[in-house]
Amino acid sequence: MVQNATLESTLKTLVENKRYSSVKDILVTMNPSDIAAIFDDLTEEQLPIMFRLLPKALAADSFVEMNTDNQELLIKGFSDTELKQVLDEMYVDDTVDIVEEMPANVVSRILKQVTPEKRRDINEILRYPENSAGSIMTTEYISLSPKMTVSEAFKRIRETGVDKETIYTCYVLSSFNRLLGLVSAKSLMLEKDENATIESLMQSNVITVNTKMDQEEVAKTLSKYNFMALPVVDSEDRMVGIVTFDDAMDVMVQEATEDITIMSGQTPYENTYLRTSPWELFKHRIPWLMILMISATFTGLIITNFESALAVHVILTAFIPMLMDTGGNSGSQSSVTIIRAISLGEVEFNDIGKVILKEFLTSLMCGLALSIACFAKVMLVDGLLFQNASVTFMVAFSVSLTMCLTVVIAKLIGCTLPLVAKKIGFDPAVMASPFITTIVDALSLLIYFAIATAILF
Amino acid sequence: MVQNATLESTLKTLVENKRYSSVKDILVTMNPSDIAAIFDDLTEEQLPIMFRLLPKALAADSFVEMNTDNQELLIKGFSDTELKQVLDEMYVDDTVDIVEEMPANVVSRILKQVTPEKRRDINEILRYPENSAGSIMTTEYISLSPKMTVSEAFKRIRETGVDKETIYTCYVLSSFNRLLGLVSAKSLMLEKDENATIESLMQSNVITVNTKMDQEEVAKTLSKYNFMALPVVDSEDRMVGIVTFDDAMDVMVQEATEDITIMSGQTPYENTYLRTSPWELFKHRIPWLMILMISATFTGLIITNFESALAVHVILTAFIPMLMDTGGNSGSQSSVTIIRAISLGEVEFNDIGKVILKEFLTSLMCGLALSIACFAKVMLVDGLLFQNASVTFMVAFSVSLTMCLTVVIAKLIGCTLPLVAKKIGFDPAVMASPFITTIVDALSLLIYFAIATAILF
Repeated sequence: MVQNATLESTLKTLVENKRYSSVKDILVTMNPSDIAAIFDDLTEEQLPIMFRLLPKALAADSFVEMNTDNQELLIKGFSDTELKQVLDEMYVDDTVDIVEEMPANVVSRILKQVTPEKRRDINEILRYPENSAGSIMTTEYISLSPKMTVSEAFKRIRETGVDKETIYTCYVLSSFNRLLGLVSAKSLMLEKDENATIESLMQSNVITVNTKMDQEEVAKTLSKYNFMALPVVDSEDRMVGIVTFDDAMDVMVQEATEDITIMSGQTPYENTYLRTSPWELFKHRIPWLMILMISATFTGLIITNFESALAVHVILTAFIPMLMDTGGNSGSQSSVTIIRAISLGEVEFNDIGKVILKEFLTSLMCGLALSIACFAKVMLVDGLLFQNASVTFMVAFSVSLTMCLTVVIAKLIGCTLPLVAKKIGFDPAVMASPFITTIVDALSLLIYFAIATAILF
Repeated sequence: MVQNATLESTLKTLVENKRYSSVKDILVTMNPSDIAAIFDDLTEEQLPIMFRLLPKALAADSFVEMNTDNQELLIKGFSDTELKQVLDEMYVDDTVDIVEEMPANVVSRILKQVTPEKRRDINEILRYPENSAGSIMTTEYISLSPKMTVSEAFKRIRETGVDKETIYTCYVLSSFNRLLGLVSAKSLMLEKDENATIESLMQSNVITVNTKMDQEEVAKTLSKYNFMALPVVDSEDRMVGIVTFDDAMDVMVQEATEDITIMSGQTPYENTYLRTSPWELFKHRIPWLMILMISATFTGLIITNFESALAVHVILTAFIPMLMDTGGNSGSQSSVTIIRAISLGEVEFNDIGKVILKEFLTSLMCGLALSIACFAKVMLVDGLLFQNASVTFMVAFSVSLTMCLTVVIAKLIGCTLPLVAKKIGFDPAVMASPFITTIVDALSLLIYFAIATAILF
């Protein structure tokens, strides 16, 4: 970070002094994502100047890494020839990502400048539903035929490899584009017999994903098998593209962020935090805040119902926040753990029995430990230390008993709801702290007042 | 899953009927991680039988993917020769992972069976601190010298490539093991001149990581640049190993899980959920539950202080849960968002001004919307619908005003604490819902009672 900051100011000074050849010398040693990061902070005037200093291939690679605003700005300033040059260097999947973000007039300019073949591929990828394997794949892979020899395969790789996203996994296809197997570049390179056939080298038991598979599943499959790329096949089992490990990595990060966002009671953002406006943030946050606030009507009603009891033992009110919070925290520990385990594929609905038993035993231990500590705390701190006469043994006992029951119930609800949500097709991540807290609040109050009424009145 | 389940029962039946040649035929078509998953559910008797059916290389690959208990069980049953066979096929980093999990007597057996060279590498990797680049790297990479020609490089790859974790990125080293640059297998394969030197093809501006760098940073760097592997150098800039994309992927998933676990008020688990015992779960959950429960003493004290006021307007108690929950939810929306943004490297301490401004504007909008809705809800639902005479205009006004102020303060605290934690070297993930809720609870009560006292008395 520090390094980039210094480099950035050096570059800016050089640009301002119009020392373009030095700027170019620095830029060509850099990586595309570092260049894009530096371009983020340039002015609208500096950006096109700096961009035009880059050699063609580096320009295209850096363009792909830039934020949408900069991409749009550059495209609007490009001549048709410049646009074509950048697009020619780009992979199909990256082009699709850009097309998806741009306004209609920019998109039509892009589609006019790409080759007819690429245009067909772009349109095909765009047809797949968002977040499906088809939508994140690229159509640029190396295909070989089974009868080829190793040296013929090398020749083909040499001829067609430049434009392919990976040349390290080659796919062996039948004449009808059916996937017969794969050969790794490693096995080709390590093969001593140049005349060995691809058929004899290929691995025919290939894991494939369907174009419609959710991108999260695709990423998980790729990571599970430690693959560099996964072949994507259509419903008629014809190979249509590949998903590469770098895209799978991005998907995994993106999906974890989405889960975390939903778990905190927000709808997922499109953009990074710093690029999201307060108005956008508001729109993503207010729905759940509103729903949860309205749901709190129940807790209000429960308290109103016990108003007369509370008027007699006002001290009972003092323990409401502690009981509610501990219940909420206990419940969200369980729900968040289960949500993540579902997300990672470690737990599924069929495990519900095991999960409930495990959580029940854990909650008993937590509940007992907490209620003992709670009893001691109430008696010693609230009773003795602060000399509160209304804190009697029976009050402390009611609070501690409620504590234990609340923790057990909170954990049981916390572990069950995400599994049930998954089963009936909802996103389990919704069943995290905010949601669980609201339910547990109401339940803990009901338990509290029931116990207090039974013991104290 | 269904597929594996059926396959598993088929395999089990075949094993029980001692149809080992059929079992073998099925197993050899499978992937190591699928085999490991099936082995998970075998009995202690079946496991060694099934394992011995696997061909050497597949056996080693499957062994790596198994859970620790099964690995230990198998090693204990292995003859020295069998153990050596498996170890010979394994990469150094995988061997280290296993060594780290095994009891001392098993470790010493393993170290006795590996080659002296591998033993040295294992011991070197074990010296690095947990979760550092050094601890997750492998020492098996392809090194080339700058004066080699392309055909000499191919020869070297062919001779040494079999045992290397990746042959697709080759590292060009000086005679002192200093990293001069890298060449991709792609550029070697696409090069038409067999006599071109490696020096002329190599990319000399290489991104490296230090052995001590945190694994999370390593994974982020690899993902940022879309690299297949990252070279690891020691403090004297000598190349010591590589971290490959598949390990980086695992690190990213693991770190996201760790963040999520901490955010829900738990200390991170070692094992998967289903393999963690209730007693283990208890130990990971009770510390924060205890701390947060004790902290709730403050909210109790605040309420006790206003006992007399609450005795006059008992209705005020009914709104405590709603105010506390909405405050908690608002705060955790902000804190969780910032924690994730810090984790992804999108936000750092220097952005604190921008973050506070953004959150302040967002919280004003959320606060206003919620307090208007809250006012309407209190007047219409609690006042009119449930005919509660104690719900006056002034009560509704006090509650709504508190609502707005609580939301603003909750969001400001929620966004500031994670950044401050990061700055002073604490884990920002601790500053999530449970922690924020406890602080916001106390503050919201203070605001509530201050406003209520001013308006109602």
